[in-house]
Amino acid sequence: MKEHGVDVYYIPSSDRHLSEYVDEHFKVREFMSGFSGSAGTLVVSRKDAALFTDGRYFIQAERELEGSGIELMKMGEPETPALPDYVADLIPEGGVLGCDGKTAATEVIVEILAKAGGKDVRAAHGRDLAGELWDARPPLRLTKAWVLDEKETGESVLQKLTRIRKRMTETKTDLHIAGALDDIAWIFNLRGNDVKNNPVNLAYAVIAANRATLYMAEEKLTPDVAEFLRKNHVAHRDYGEFYRDLADIAGKSVLLDKQRINYAVYTAVKENNRIVFSENPSLLMKAQKNPVELANIREAHIRDGVACARFHHWLKETTRHPGSGPRLSETDVVRKLESFRKEQEGYLEPSFNTIAAAGANAAMMHYRPDPEHPVYLEPGALLLVDSGGQYRYGTTDITRTFAIGEVPVPLREHATLVLKGMLALADAVFLHGVTGTNLDVLARAPLWRRGIDYKSGTGHGIGFLLNVHEGPHRIATTWNPQVLEEGMVVSDEPGVYVENSHGIRIENELVVRKAEKNVFGQFMRFEILTFVPIDLDAVLPELLTAEEKRRLNDYHKTVFEKLSPHMTEEERKWLREYTKEV
Amino acid sequence: MKEHGVDVYYIPSSDRHLSEYVDEHFKVREFMSGFSGSAGTLVVSRKDAALFTDGRYFIQAERELEGSGIELMKMGEPETPALPDYVADLIPEGGVLGCDGKTAATEVIVEILAKAGGKDVRAAHGRDLAGELWDARPPLRLTKAWVLDEKETGESVLQKLTRIRKRMTETKTDLHIAGALDDIAWIFNLRGNDVKNNPVNLAYAVIAANRATLYMAEEKLTPDVAEFLRKNHVAHRDYGEFYRDLADIAGKSVLLDKQRINYAVYTAVKENNRIVFSENPSLLMKAQKNPVELANIREAHIRDGVACARFHHWLKETTRHPGSGPRLSETDVVRKLESFRKEQEGYLEPSFNTIAAAGANAAMMHYRPDPEHPVYLEPGALLLVDSGGQYRYGTTDITRTFAIGEVPVPLREHATLVLKGMLALADAVFLHGVTGTNLDVLARAPLWRRGIDYKSGTGHGIGFLLNVHEGPHRIATTWNPQVLEEGMVVSDEPGVYVENSHGIRIENELVVRKAEKNVFGQFMRFEILTFVPIDLDAVLPELLTAEEKRRLNDYHKTVFEKLSPHMTEEERKWLREYTKEV
Repeated sequence: MKEHGVDVYYIPSSDRHLSEYVDEHFKVREFMSGFSGSAGTLVVSRKDAALFTDGRYFIQAERELEGSGIELMKMGEPETPALPDYVADLIPEGGVLGCDGKTAATEVIVEILAKAGGKDVRAAHGRDLAGELWDARPPLRLTKAWVLDEKETGESVLQKLTRIRKRMTETKTDLHIAGALDDIAWIFNLRGNDVKNNPVNLAYAVIAANRATLYMAEEKLTPDVAEFLRKNHVAHRDYGEFYRDLADIAGKSVLLDKQRINYAVYTAVKENNRIVFSENPSLLMKAQKNPVELANIREAHIRDGVACARFHHWLKETTRHPGSGPRLSETDVVRKLESFRKEQEGYLEPSFNTIAAAGANAAMMHYRPDPEHPVYLEPGALLLVDSGGQYRYGTTDITRTFAIGEVPVPLREHATLVLKGMLALADAVFLHGVTGTNLDVLARAPLWRRGIDYKSGTGHGIGFLLNVHEGPHRIATTWNPQVLEEGMVVSDEPGVYVENSHGIRIENELVVRKAEKNVFGQFMRFEILTFVPIDLDAVLPELLTAEEKRRLNDYHKTVFEKLSPHMTEEERKWLREYTKEV
Repeated sequence: MKEHGVDVYYIPSSDRHLSEYVDEHFKVREFMSGFSGSAGTLVVSRKDAALFTDGRYFIQAERELEGSGIELMKMGEPETPALPDYVADLIPEGGVLGCDGKTAATEVIVEILAKAGGKDVRAAHGRDLAGELWDARPPLRLTKAWVLDEKETGESVLQKLTRIRKRMTETKTDLHIAGALDDIAWIFNLRGNDVKNNPVNLAYAVIAANRATLYMAEEKLTPDVAEFLRKNHVAHRDYGEFYRDLADIAGKSVLLDKQRINYAVYTAVKENNRIVFSENPSLLMKAQKNPVELANIREAHIRDGVACARFHHWLKETTRHPGSGPRLSETDVVRKLESFRKEQEGYLEPSFNTIAAAGANAAMMHYRPDPEHPVYLEPGALLLVDSGGQYRYGTTDITRTFAIGEVPVPLREHATLVLKGMLALADAVFLHGVTGTNLDVLARAPLWRRGIDYKSGTGHGIGFLLNVHEGPHRIATTWNPQVLEEGMVVSDEPGVYVENSHGIRIENELVVRKAEKNVFGQFMRFEILTFVPIDLDAVLPELLTAEEKRRLNDYHKTVFEKLSPHMTEEERKWLREYTKEV
């Protein structure tokens, strides 16, 4: 830092595309700090260093940072300053903020510089100073790209580009530069395996009115992909050429999404062009699944449902007689579930790291079992399993909470409250124009009435054979301005988390559909996509109202209808019992 | 306009204090256009003129503007431009926007000028050109001010000023200029009668760290008020001196609420001072009623409840045998209700113009009966009555929908859906931190399920012996960022409006209270303030769930307990029947 005249150095968790999940190559923050959580930002000054992370990781970060001299900044706590304020305060008058501009979000750096406004601060973003210290840095993961055909995507690359170009006309821009990997995968109907759990390719895209260029490493292009790009009139340039080509762009009006483009791109383009900040046009388009994508997604959910129901069956059989068989660890659960998914045609990989949390571990919302420190399932406790699959047909995300043996009534009461909220949200009818913020209370109300809340959103968007977390919509108490539009897939996952005791989450995926249109407007409703029994052993059906019983019974009836044709006679018998009317 | 070099002249509905309700003196827009609705803006160019108004007034405005040559601009319709865009487009290059700066909101004029940015446009705001043409203009209404003592307000002027000064310190401002009449009434514990329905005084206030000045006409000051101000160290200056004194302010940092201060104040102060735009500090303070105010408000609601229940009783008796007595008009209903309120000790005046709407008239949300064209109550129809009182104890706002004779089942079904939503919202338990936007769906859900919506918010704030509409909180589908805080009073008024058929609204007032606090946070709930029977003849109790019946029965039980001690034996007998369990 001294050599480069840098006063404060900023190290986020992201890759060059500001992805939520990143490849090992990009874990510079973990390398520097020792903190291995998925979200956290390291801020290094000449004297000391601080790591900002959120409530999911306080305990883990405290442990991993011990003795490092790095101060833990607990985001969301009242005494913790906002990160941009903290960094802006830290930089001295006339000072220099260093960062690898390629991994820093434009929005954050612009905000820090604005907050440090009076101090004549500048950013030095050309060098990855931290990464350069990393001798054993893993290389970039570059897998082969693969093509989805129109029967899978329902829309050609040209049609998608036409829609994006329309948006460029509306925003009076000549060029759009996309850096988000899932947006690029969606636009070009390509997938890859460059990021674990996310079937994307490391790439950038530059879209003009009459030209579209995809920047992707040469070695990723199979002849099929090359031919596909040619046929779609998409120019290909090597990944490494991207920043060099940026320098040649001049006199243009350029649409950039400041949350989804890195600071290096922004600064390179800003010099000789006019920047129009606007949400990536593909963000909203990608979120609204078309009928072909939806048909595929429904197929993925049936396959995933069969795997999950088989797992459920196996779990119940294996834990029926406590003490008789081998003990099951959380890791055994993860492996077994994965083995059932692998049996399914079209299965590719998990859509995220499976959470299998027994007893009190489930109170940690993002717990992940550690094979080296096995935790075993105990009778009388709950087991929370949150997992998902990437199928050739689509992406799934599902949570069920299982009773291991006979579970105490208070826990089953909590699980019943969660179930009430989950069913109520799924059954909502609402006017077109509302956002997830308007509906969030439907899932929380039964818990709030009992003085319980969960410190997370209720639902997130999910991609089509893409990322398991996808915007722009969201169901949460905090304001999300995105109207719920037809075809948006969203999770419905209320929960109860009681520290040192238990954790419960029940999660289905929903898709927004049109309902009645009349003089009052267009009404909307949800269709449930997930078909997996809800473990009745973990709830108290007598606490459900008549309406809630109807919802549960209707759901289980559909689950049986969808899954039973794909099951053996024995499994079917079990499924009938576990989807019976309450 | 030619003489004064004005290209476009802007005439809003407001008075100098940007009040919702204005005195006759300020109805310049009505004088110029002939349109008598409460909300509308006239935009006059050298060639033509346009009147912007909202959906409540389309029919009335069309009728009243006929033959005037003024174009009606229907706000909210897709083809209608936003008013600031329209005005900005209309002004020619280098043109002049004229307005009476004293009646134009700072926010609007600043926005128009910003939108006309490239055109070198300026505002000429020094002359009330339209008002000057009004020969028969009524004089300013200047009534005597009166003092509320601390037993009524629960907080002294000094305590209120101290809180405002703390906020000034936080915003780093030296001065705060308040123009909103209800804010000024609240800060100085004064009331008046300068605006019908709103017990306020025409006044401005300038608050500094060590000085507070109230600008109010000399003739409004009784010796009591003068003594009260002296004792509270509040300087008094004549209303007419305000703008002259503004010119002397220099070198200060001034807190202004751009939505609540007129453009004349803003421009006068801007010249020699630094402006900090921020919400009036008193807005949020005034919204959170203290325990003394709440005790008074509860008293007002019992008195108002007795009056409304007596009206209900009278209405039922009078319409029991259709054809036997004299016919009742909507205006008769208004008069009768007012006569019952006048019997109550402490009653001052209605808090707004009573809506009494029979049959299809109730589909017009802001209908007001016209005594010259009486509409009579017909058996088999509903009667919607929305009214409120200003009592020395507080302000009320209540709506009930009554069955006149035997009402068809479909209408009673609609009324039952409204009742379900009204009861559900009132019974909500929620986490501190949420806003009215989070809870709105609770009132709408039963209607949405049946494909019905109402095109208004669900609830608004209500003053303490002040304006019947008060911010900053609101319960509505559209985003309102104000967290619901303890002591906020809010209405709960879902409805059904079917054009040319019927209208239903049932409205209670609620106050936000603290509930349980635990590891998950501080929970909140509502206390119902309104005690008036809900007309069971207008609903179908068999459509209520067990939970909804419990809510209704609990409410009616409380209504009986609160009102019966103040009623005659005969009234009590009637009340028992009309609050019976379902």
